[in-house]
Amino acid sequence: MSEQTKNKKDTLPVIHKSELVAQSRLFKIEQLELEFSNGEQRTYERMKSSGRGAVMIIPIVNEQEFLLVSEYCAGTHSYELGFPKGLIDPGESPEHAANRELKEEIGFGAKRLVQLKSLSSTPSYFNSIMHIFMAFDLYPESLEGDEPEPLTVVNWQWDNLEELMSREDFTEARSVSALYMAKEKLTL
Amino acid sequence: MSEQTKNKKDTLPVIHKSELVAQSRLFKIEQLELEFSNGEQRTYERMKSSGRGAVMIIPIVNEQEFLLVSEYCAGTHSYELGFPKGLIDPGESPEHAANRELKEEIGFGAKRLVQLKSLSSTPSYFNSIMHIFMAFDLYPESLEGDEPEPLTVVNWQWDNLEELMSREDFTEARSVSALYMAKEKLTL
Repeated sequence: MSEQTKNKKDTLPVIHKSELVAQSRLFKIEQLELEFSNGEQRTYERMKSSGRGAVMIIPIVNEQEFLLVSEYCAGTHSYELGFPKGLIDPGESPEHAANRELKEEIGFGAKRLVQLKSLSSTPSYFNSIMHIFMAFDLYPESLEGDEPEPLTVVNWQWDNLEELMSREDFTEARSVSALYMAKEKLTL
Repeated sequence: MSEQTKNKKDTLPVIHKSELVAQSRLFKIEQLELEFSNGEQRTYERMKSSGRGAVMIIPIVNEQEFLLVSEYCAGTHSYELGFPKGLIDPGESPEHAANRELKEEIGFGAKRLVQLKSLSSTPSYFNSIMHIFMAFDLYPESLEGDEPEPLTVVNWQWDNLEELMSREDFTEARSVSALYMAKEKLTL
């Protein structure tokens, strides 16, 4: 089966043309003229990547408890529960970005970070990678962020994950993945 | 803690103005003039939703095995491993869409679908919901889809998830979440 996958990787479609077709302050939409290895031709669209990765952090309070934040999401015009996250600044390491975001969003630094699997989001359209960290040995330290309002920090118990998973404001796939990966890591 | 979250929900920012600022064949980018409950004013951007939900399906072969597909993703210009998925057609139920996508992408229908938690993707910018199904009692049946090339179908063993999670072409957060949710459901 890995042979099949390998063959596929060897025959990526050819990009005959790529063109910027729409642009806003934050987004650049690129149109691609593609030819697949079977000769099929298609026009696809994708978001041009900023090249900046992102981080998400699971703040571990102790063996019983972790932290979540509730933050306004414009896409859904609602407050969503999830883990602290943010873009990596130019020249910054993912670890540094993780600690900075923690200090900005929840007012804690972490003495120890453990990296989990990095995740992508909708790779059909985006090229963005998010590095996931568990943060241990938290200590109070705040940094001024660019949030329009303070985030609501929520303490949650590891033995109450069923309730969290049933909440309608906890649905973001990267936060759900991070939760399961952290739980697995803690029980290894 | 739910009290804190509730207060936040009661004080959503006011959208003073929304305006289409860029548009392509697939995407509409909307600019929002927001005022948060603390008086802070910000300009945000988001993708205008098509209103169509999506489905993702974990095809369960038996207690030992499930199926994945390897599909070209333009955002990353790479083949990515994940679960069959697709948009819900107008007037179609999520269950019907799930069975249709299965028939189009892997050449099987399912006699039984079990729905798991629905997931969102980057709600800061998007309003899209994906309904996740486990598909049981598969039978061969194909439908013509709109794929430019046949997808590579990959059989995977439930007892080999560590290898899957270590693969660089299995990173999509909704597929990772779906995998963990299905595993949990199977071992309940």
